[in-house]
Amino acid sequence: MKTGEEKILLSHGNGGRMMHQLIENLFIKYFSNSILEEQTDSAILQIDTPEIAFTTDSFVIDPLFFPGGNIGKLAVCGTVNDLAVSGAIPRYLSVSFIIEEGFAMKELEVIVSSLAEEARKANVSIVTGDTKVVNKGKCDKLFINTTGIGSVRNENRLISNALDFSAGDVIIINGTIGDHGMAVMSARESFNFKSQVTSDCASLNHLIREVLDRSSSVKFMRDPTRGGVATVLNELAGKTGMGIDIDETALPLSRGVTAMCELLGFDPLHIANEGKVLIVANQEEGKHILEIMKKNELGVHSAIIGRITNDHPGKVVLKTETGGSRIIDTLTGDPLPRIC
Amino acid sequence: MKTGEEKILLSHGNGGRMMHQLIENLFIKYFSNSILEEQTDSAILQIDTPEIAFTTDSFVIDPLFFPGGNIGKLAVCGTVNDLAVSGAIPRYLSVSFIIEEGFAMKELEVIVSSLAEEARKANVSIVTGDTKVVNKGKCDKLFINTTGIGSVRNENRLISNALDFSAGDVIIINGTIGDHGMAVMSARESFNFKSQVTSDCASLNHLIREVLDRSSSVKFMRDPTRGGVATVLNELAGKTGMGIDIDETALPLSRGVTAMCELLGFDPLHIANEGKVLIVANQEEGKHILEIMKKNELGVHSAIIGRITNDHPGKVVLKTETGGSRIIDTLTGDPLPRIC
Repeated sequence: MKTGEEKILLSHGNGGRMMHQLIENLFIKYFSNSILEEQTDSAILQIDTPEIAFTTDSFVIDPLFFPGGNIGKLAVCGTVNDLAVSGAIPRYLSVSFIIEEGFAMKELEVIVSSLAEEARKANVSIVTGDTKVVNKGKCDKLFINTTGIGSVRNENRLISNALDFSAGDVIIINGTIGDHGMAVMSARESFNFKSQVTSDCASLNHLIREVLDRSSSVKFMRDPTRGGVATVLNELAGKTGMGIDIDETALPLSRGVTAMCELLGFDPLHIANEGKVLIVANQEEGKHILEIMKKNELGVHSAIIGRITNDHPGKVVLKTETGGSRIIDTLTGDPLPRIC
Repeated sequence: MKTGEEKILLSHGNGGRMMHQLIENLFIKYFSNSILEEQTDSAILQIDTPEIAFTTDSFVIDPLFFPGGNIGKLAVCGTVNDLAVSGAIPRYLSVSFIIEEGFAMKELEVIVSSLAEEARKANVSIVTGDTKVVNKGKCDKLFINTTGIGSVRNENRLISNALDFSAGDVIIINGTIGDHGMAVMSARESFNFKSQVTSDCASLNHLIREVLDRSSSVKFMRDPTRGGVATVLNELAGKTGMGIDIDETALPLSRGVTAMCELLGFDPLHIANEGKVLIVANQEEGKHILEIMKKNELGVHSAIIGRITNDHPGKVVLKTETGGSRIIDTLTGDPLPRIC
């Protein structure tokens, strides 16, 4: 570990000697692989499929550390999951840091170490990167961009404009909702409320691979991050022109998230997740997929939470515990900025 | 154009309705292509070579607008050039924005329009993206990450650890040095000095392609950005264990850069370029490459600026106009932060 007092300086980002030392002593040390070690302008990658998936995400989460993870772990999970829900096998990541002058080297090392550990778990290689340092006060501690490449196996290709939905198709999720958003919220200094909520931040590619290897009937997959489950389902309803019914009693919810949402007046359907996937399949296949998911450690609490319907086209409707119903819309305002 | 008063709000980054409007009305409008329009989690790309080049860069330049370009143009050129100097044909870019709340929509539109225009010139497609908005004061107006993919043609593969250098090999550059850094410096509000220096910011892939199509003897190519020509040549000297002589009288320098560097005490060899490439080849092939480069509009002022030597191994030495010599080292401090 670095000594406690070392700080990031502007010269760690100037392309000169200190930047090279930072790359050698921190990034290459933790991300160690033969491609990265070439230190060329571009990583040269072998591609074994005629198509690849390509996705990018910048992480500006506040605070950097939260129950269940930190910005480094999150930066891997977020991009790995975007590749996986496209039906691709995540392979390579780039990592780009924007660091505020004066940031503690020790904290950076913890974050870089988490990034490396999560990349190993997800079986992806960090093959190229970039470091910029901005003057104190010009960014909020640390932002990370990860951009990912995955191999597309044609039998798993999922393209949402080639959808074929029917009334009765089921909507499955791999566990409790809203945990990431509420965990980050509870970690904020301004929030004076003891909570036991832990982020669900996790790489879902192995779970998704198990599903796709054993079912060829997945109609739709998406990770409900910013904007939560409500936003993904509204997009799906909009694109398909079908309606969606959600069963309130079927929604997996942790006690902590339920308590925080009641206290703060949030709807968990609008809260971000970072280790959840929504899957749509016909009813029979849905039950099969549910069984597969429940056997994975990241899917123990999987549940069918709703159905596609011919009613209320383009709208998502929550069937409440008390027998009523309520339209669940996409968010417009932002109750929780910088959640990812 | 957007009306003058519209501002970026936190809800433009929350995954909800306003973010989707921003994507539709700004990003898709300007970057328009069929892959981006799918709006899936990952872009699905056709790859026609067994290898690809992959590179990432975050741009934090201050100010956003400077003589000769803006952060949008720069974000394309920087990544396109990193791919091109690896011998790859740049094909696809991701673009990720981190925007400060309150940023003027009109300025964002100008920047997005420049990004789109430069991508067209460079013949690359912007196929996926991300938008984050942070609270006022938590970043400095706008940061952009671009990550690029290029096709690697095996006959053009350049890997710097497989180098084969000899004394007498020449070092060629495609024009004047230091223009980008000095143009950005002169655009800063704190700098009260009228200057006519314009950034050299340009996509070099077409120039580089002409060279590689007509010469199979390029030993090394690199774009001298942060840290300037001095940093690239020091890396080369370090990796090869050979010495490098630079001829001061041969260095192409604009009058504006010469004047600013004299005034401020900078060495133009340490100043960033964003439209320059350093090429190493044997003496005979070097002359041939020089002729090719001079015929391209981005290479009119190309020159041989130095040579590989068996003397002073690992060191870069400037042979001065007056017949003296001086070691040119890599920068340690940073006289010009946030130049890219």
